[in-house]
Amino acid sequence: MTEPTQGTESRARVNVKDLQAPVLPELARVQEELGRFFISDVGLINEISRHMLRANGKRFRPTLLLLCQRLRGPSTQEAVVSATIVELVHTATLIHDDSIDRSFLRRGLPTVNSLWNDQTSVIMGDYLYSKAFFLLVEYGLFEVMKILARTTHRMSLGEMLELEHKQNFDLDEETYNRLILDKTAVLLSAACEIGGYLAWGDGRERRLLADFGTDLGMAFQITDDILDVEGDAEMMGKSTGSDIRDGKVTLPLIHVLRTGSPRVVKQIQDRMRVEPIEAAAAREVATLVAEHGGLDFARQRARAYADHALEFLDAFPDGVSRRTLRASVEYVLGRRE
Amino acid sequence: MTEPTQGTESRARVNVKDLQAPVLPELARVQEELGRFFISDVGLINEISRHMLRANGKRFRPTLLLLCQRLRGPSTQEAVVSATIVELVHTATLIHDDSIDRSFLRRGLPTVNSLWNDQTSVIMGDYLYSKAFFLLVEYGLFEVMKILARTTHRMSLGEMLELEHKQNFDLDEETYNRLILDKTAVLLSAACEIGGYLAWGDGRERRLLADFGTDLGMAFQITDDILDVEGDAEMMGKSTGSDIRDGKVTLPLIHVLRTGSPRVVKQIQDRMRVEPIEAAAAREVATLVAEHGGLDFARQRARAYADHALEFLDAFPDGVSRRTLRASVEYVLGRRE
Repeated sequence: MTEPTQGTESRARVNVKDLQAPVLPELARVQEELGRFFISDVGLINEISRHMLRANGKRFRPTLLLLCQRLRGPSTQEAVVSATIVELVHTATLIHDDSIDRSFLRRGLPTVNSLWNDQTSVIMGDYLYSKAFFLLVEYGLFEVMKILARTTHRMSLGEMLELEHKQNFDLDEETYNRLILDKTAVLLSAACEIGGYLAWGDGRERRLLADFGTDLGMAFQITDDILDVEGDAEMMGKSTGSDIRDGKVTLPLIHVLRTGSPRVVKQIQDRMRVEPIEAAAAREVATLVAEHGGLDFARQRARAYADHALEFLDAFPDGVSRRTLRASVEYVLGRRE
Repeated sequence: MTEPTQGTESRARVNVKDLQAPVLPELARVQEELGRFFISDVGLINEISRHMLRANGKRFRPTLLLLCQRLRGPSTQEAVVSATIVELVHTATLIHDDSIDRSFLRRGLPTVNSLWNDQTSVIMGDYLYSKAFFLLVEYGLFEVMKILARTTHRMSLGEMLELEHKQNFDLDEETYNRLILDKTAVLLSAACEIGGYLAWGDGRERRLLADFGTDLGMAFQITDDILDVEGDAEMMGKSTGSDIRDGKVTLPLIHVLRTGSPRVVKQIQDRMRVEPIEAAAAREVATLVAEHGGLDFARQRARAYADHALEFLDAFPDGVSRRTLRASVEYVLGRRE
């Protein structure tokens, strides 16, 4: 269950710091702006904001946006603001997701729903979403707003689809793909598309980068689903098998449920039909999935999306930004957290 | 506790149907559009949407928007679409609020959180919010979007402020006013402002109608808070004293906590400090508040806001729309549900 990820073994492991390096000054400004945007004159919001800023995420989406924009020229103020707003939207979804999934840890720190409660999470998420749209209006970034309005809408559709298909052991790969596309990939795609739009305006580059981000996002979520199954609680900063315990039928499971023997399928279903699904049962499911090729299959799929993502970059001139975007694909596949 | 509302007694009771009458065909189109906008290709969303459409609210905000726009001329397609979007935003806040307040009934029908669960409520609210912004982009209603981005942002601030001040027996009227302004009045104000903007563009009329909506909204929320104390479970379609049970310190309570004898203040606080606050304790608090002038005081405040609201209408030409907007002020004060 903890063997090294196939296909990335031979490649050098990419650290998120390697991706951030070319846009480090811009990311520092994103961090500053985040501090400013998080703050309000309501004490409770500021308390939660301080906690969120302490958590200090990887800022992967802002990094992608900044790198895509930098494919063409020096960073602009608009890119920094847009990158910050994308991170606000991302943070809002994390807060709502953690409340929905009843997660208690994220990146090793307690979640908003565990430190405060679900009510606070709902309002804090709404606060950050609405702040994002408010800022887009304030800065007159209407095209960026168009992209993000469409994106957040699709994200809520993805979330609902996921909820609808919990404990659905007949979930097919097509529906799973649509689900992770809407839930996860559209926001990475939006980050890249916005970078492209800010650099080139409307046109071919914008579309290519949106497509790059989509495939990168698919690889990202499939890797997330793999990590949950093979997981290492310490590295993930959350408990292993939390998707399984949550009744989520992800790609590694789908493969085994579709190709496994009736006995194996029954063993998995039996363990996941009992609510609540205990940690021990989830571990057994994870072991079954790993033993019957679920992880290998999912890794192949992630690799295929990653390779496809790389192709979209061919149209862009070589340079630090393109090389780093290429590295981001390897980072996504190779990440352990 | 159930004596007729002072100051509105002498006036004819205004029914919501009286307000809707001049814009009935437009409201029918709003209803149609709502049906269209609620629907997605995710089964669970459509199920919840059908339930929400069955609940069939009073459509008070769309009515206000349409009436304000009609002050100048015939209704436009933009007004109908904007009215629908305002109702989507309102519905999103109701779904999140009911989940936050753990309400089980609204308008006599079970809430989304009670029929499904809190998770579903969070996502459904997010779906409707994001749909609203998505539609504003699709229809190119950027100025309306500006108004609604600012508005939803302030609403989340108001919600958080409310959460922060639960069980705060020192809450002063100024903070309460800010709280209900952000939580409730800004959306009624936005509805009126959008109507004014669509009729006149930017200018004096837009500002006057925004101010009219703000004061109307203040009267609306104070009346809501009065009804919760004096309430009649059957008429409200929700249990009496739910604010009190929720630890909310509303205007009738603030008055008594500030002006009541130490004995009365202690009686109220003792009953509200025990969690959970039982229905019997809430009834006792409501009785104390009513006996010590809390309701009368709040009614005076509501009346003052209402009178102020009416003044803003003086600038507009007499006609069905202005007369109906005037009636809407009386409706707000006199409503029993």
